[in-house]
Amino acid sequence: MTIILYDIPSTLPGDALNPSTWKTRYTLNIKGIPYTTEWVEFPDIEPLAKKLGISPTLKKPDGSPLYTLPAIYDPSTGTYVSESLRIAEYLEKTYPDAPTIFPNNTAGLQMAFTDAFMSKIPKLLPFILPAQVLRLNSPSAEYIRRSREKDFGKTLEEVLPKGEEAVRQWAAYKDGLGTVDAWYSKNGGMGPFLLGETPSWADVVVGAFSMWCRKVWGEGSQEWKDIMSWHDGRWQTIMEGLKKYETVN
Amino acid sequence: MTIILYDIPSTLPGDALNPSTWKTRYTLNIKGIPYTTEWVEFPDIEPLAKKLGISPTLKKPDGSPLYTLPAIYDPSTGTYVSESLRIAEYLEKTYPDAPTIFPNNTAGLQMAFTDAFMSKIPKLLPFILPAQVLRLNSPSAEYIRRSREKDFGKTLEEVLPKGEEAVRQWAAYKDGLGTVDAWYSKNGGMGPFLLGETPSWADVVVGAFSMWCRKVWGEGSQEWKDIMSWHDGRWQTIMEGLKKYETVN
Repeated sequence: MTIILYDIPSTLPGDALNPSTWKTRYTLNIKGIPYTTEWVEFPDIEPLAKKLGISPTLKKPDGSPLYTLPAIYDPSTGTYVSESLRIAEYLEKTYPDAPTIFPNNTAGLQMAFTDAFMSKIPKLLPFILPAQVLRLNSPSAEYIRRSREKDFGKTLEEVLPKGEEAVRQWAAYKDGLGTVDAWYSKNGGMGPFLLGETPSWADVVVGAFSMWCRKVWGEGSQEWKDIMSWHDGRWQTIMEGLKKYETVN
Repeated sequence: MTIILYDIPSTLPGDALNPSTWKTRYTLNIKGIPYTTEWVEFPDIEPLAKKLGISPTLKKPDGSPLYTLPAIYDPSTGTYVSESLRIAEYLEKTYPDAPTIFPNNTAGLQMAFTDAFMSKIPKLLPFILPAQVLRLNSPSAEYIRRSREKDFGKTLEEVLPKGEEAVRQWAAYKDGLGTVDAWYSKNGGMGPFLLGETPSWADVVVGAFSMWCRKVWGEGSQEWKDIMSWHDGRWQTIMEGLKKYETVN
């Protein structure tokens, strides 16, 4: 009885790119719950979700439902669940003997962390969104380009910061991460993770966004080298801690 | 060897009003560390801090140091500490046998909570700042009025939302608290606090701001009744849980 994880494919064969679906992949790997991946291009998400009865997770600007991944199907309960946090909560409840990612009843604190973390990294998006489409297969690339360019009101090439503006914006992204680094520095040096030795939801969120950077830009890129060098290697330490949970099944 | 807590007096005799100093008061009470209060009017904070050698905590817009309360003096180590979080960290380290307010190595998560919580409650300020000066003694009231009116570029009476705007802004404040309520709802109903039965820094922060509302507006006010009625009594439940830590020594 193996869980199915619905994820978005990329030009990296058999590899995962998307930060939202990486949250669920890390969660499944940390919990040690068996799963296989079913790859779904962006334009196919809505038809598939409607066919299978997977709930929408957000609303489009016109108020109509928006269907997103990750989603899972758990054959042991016959349940579809969408949205990374709801999936995590489902897995916590359904598999109480697996390692928890909300240790010591910290689910509320972990949600507040996610809110605060997301507020620190908006400067990443103008850099990574134009780079990301180059890693998507053409149906997804065209779909995402159309959708993002509508959101921004300009082409992705125009969104990408350039010259001195790029230097300023990239430094601002680093500054935002600096606040997150200060939170991590409060773990008493007891391990790579926010709670010390044990990975939890906060690390899953940070790891998923770090993984997005690594996969989109590649390990040899200047962007990735920058990030790995920042804040006394904080993000490198976390990624090394999460290394054993990186398997793409 | 009793700690001295420096706090700002109000027109409520022997009672404490300020949300920042309430964080330290709650912390001392939860830890059960003996202390007495020394009351300092706002304009006297800077001269006192300079005389005693208490560190500034922020910078003024012109870059010069800003001295704030809370601060404590611990005669057992001969140490002055300012700023509520730094005081909490000092107390954790110096009194490791007292109850911790960062249980299970959650200090980093707790700091992220504080960041996220503060981002949800800016709508409170235009309501409470004009009301607060009415509860301060005249030296502090004049000082705070001058400083706040400079920040806002208008009188506190002009800052206070009125009519339909007040209804909208008060509803927006409630909405912001709704997100915080959603975090609390993840505690599994295991107690009044974010981690369940045990109070921690997150509850201290929420409690300090709730206490500010209660003391400024009074328990009979419509504002306080509103807050107590919101989110299925969430804020009432937390305040009841914190009741035994309300003593003003």
